[in-house]
Amino acid sequence: MPGRIQSVERAAAVLRLLAAGPRGLAVGEVARALRLPKGTVHGILQALQHVGFVEQDRAGGEYRLGATLLHLGTSYLDGNELRTRALNRADSLASRTRESVRIGAPHEGRVLVVHHVFRPDDSLQVLEVGALLPAHACALGKVLLAFDLRGAPALDELPLPRCTPRTRTTRADLTADLERVRARGWATDVGELVDGEAGVAAPVRDDRGAVVGAVGLCGAVERVCAPDGTPHAALVSAVRDSARAISRTLGFTGFPSGRW
Amino acid sequence: MPGRIQSVERAAAVLRLLAAGPRGLAVGEVARALRLPKGTVHGILQALQHVGFVEQDRAGGEYRLGATLLHLGTSYLDGNELRTRALNRADSLASRTRESVRIGAPHEGRVLVVHHVFRPDDSLQVLEVGALLPAHACALGKVLLAFDLRGAPALDELPLPRCTPRTRTTRADLTADLERVRARGWATDVGELVDGEAGVAAPVRDDRGAVVGAVGLCGAVERVCAPDGTPHAALVSAVRDSARAISRTLGFTGFPSGRW
Repeated sequence: MPGRIQSVERAAAVLRLLAAGPRGLAVGEVARALRLPKGTVHGILQALQHVGFVEQDRAGGEYRLGATLLHLGTSYLDGNELRTRALNRADSLASRTRESVRIGAPHEGRVLVVHHVFRPDDSLQVLEVGALLPAHACALGKVLLAFDLRGAPALDELPLPRCTPRTRTTRADLTADLERVRARGWATDVGELVDGEAGVAAPVRDDRGAVVGAVGLCGAVERVCAPDGTPHAALVSAVRDSARAISRTLGFTGFPSGRW
Repeated sequence: MPGRIQSVERAAAVLRLLAAGPRGLAVGEVARALRLPKGTVHGILQALQHVGFVEQDRAGGEYRLGATLLHLGTSYLDGNELRTRALNRADSLASRTRESVRIGAPHEGRVLVVHHVFRPDDSLQVLEVGALLPAHACALGKVLLAFDLRGAPALDELPLPRCTPRTRTTRADLTADLERVRARGWATDVGELVDGEAGVAAPVRDDRGAVVGAVGLCGAVERVCAPDGTPHAALVSAVRDSARAISRTLGFTGFPSGRW
């Protein structure tokens, strides 16, 4: 039934549009952005407001995302097997390395952060769960691009925006880096996503051996890397140990060849 | 256009159903729960899958919530004015009191946790952002019930489930408690939501003086309360100071009468 599909698709497009910007949007702005008649958009917004997916400011003007979405997002996390099975291991990795730890899953060509353990100190840190990171610029994303079969063919179309002066923004440069990731079994980024921060990540596999996510740490370059600019071997081992342990809880028992 | 509204409403009902349980559901289970034909439900699920709001397990069987919802939920938080304006004050309150701090907003008769600062120590704590707490059983919720005009008339229909042996489960008991909250300007719960934990909360007002949320702390009863079972005055002051400071950032300048 195309009508029903179309309504749900348009409603989803409105929600994504509202999620893309920091402020609410008026009916006319949504209509222009989605190239839909204003009356159509108004009907969709009213339906979405009725179910709590959007809220209207009190002057009755702009629409923004609604609180029900926060609850649905949290419920998604509760049901995410990678996250629930990795919680304890991620905590141990953060304690052991004294750095912040993230677990990422592939989502629409980027890395969706499904878990984030703060660096165990008193510093002010912002929770990144739910954030979408550019895959080419961070260790977690390079793992997913290097090992995830769904990621590989899309590499040609992946946008490679510059996040810092060190971001790999050419396909040749990224392809060579992903070759290294596949050969070594882990990935790193040194100041490629955030100036002065370095990351190390390794793949998490499910019971069939498919890479379903990545676990990694992130911290100040001077703590994570040796003077030659490569990550400390102890941190790399800790990340890889953690990735293997999480993979085991997901049922992965190793490849017959012994290759991990 | 009723068709469009109906499609969006049914899609929302499917998502809420999937959010309610810990595991995925098959088409037939969703159809039975929502009393809809299986074909109709199948069409809705396919539309929702197409936009990333639901995912199907790899065997092609059960459906569960999709990752896009997590990103939308996080985007809701980024645009939540109460939360963004309260972040720093919530951190200060946690540092000052050495207890965990939450900010809650009213949502469908319950308390939606829009921010959560962990107790500043090394203990393992679970992030509660996105959780819905029963309003009658926690200090945050009592503030909202006592001061929120939208909450008051609904009190008659509010379910009062027992969370612990100390939860107030009669309307008379709760009404008397809410009177105290209004008279004192702050609320407390002592072991009413979680055995052995006590909370203190105060109202956050917007520029018109309307209560738009609550800020509160929560911790072990023996730390939060004096031997007589009432919260330490210093903690109550800290929470009320914090609530006033957040209200000021929202534009509240006090009532003409001087009553806060």
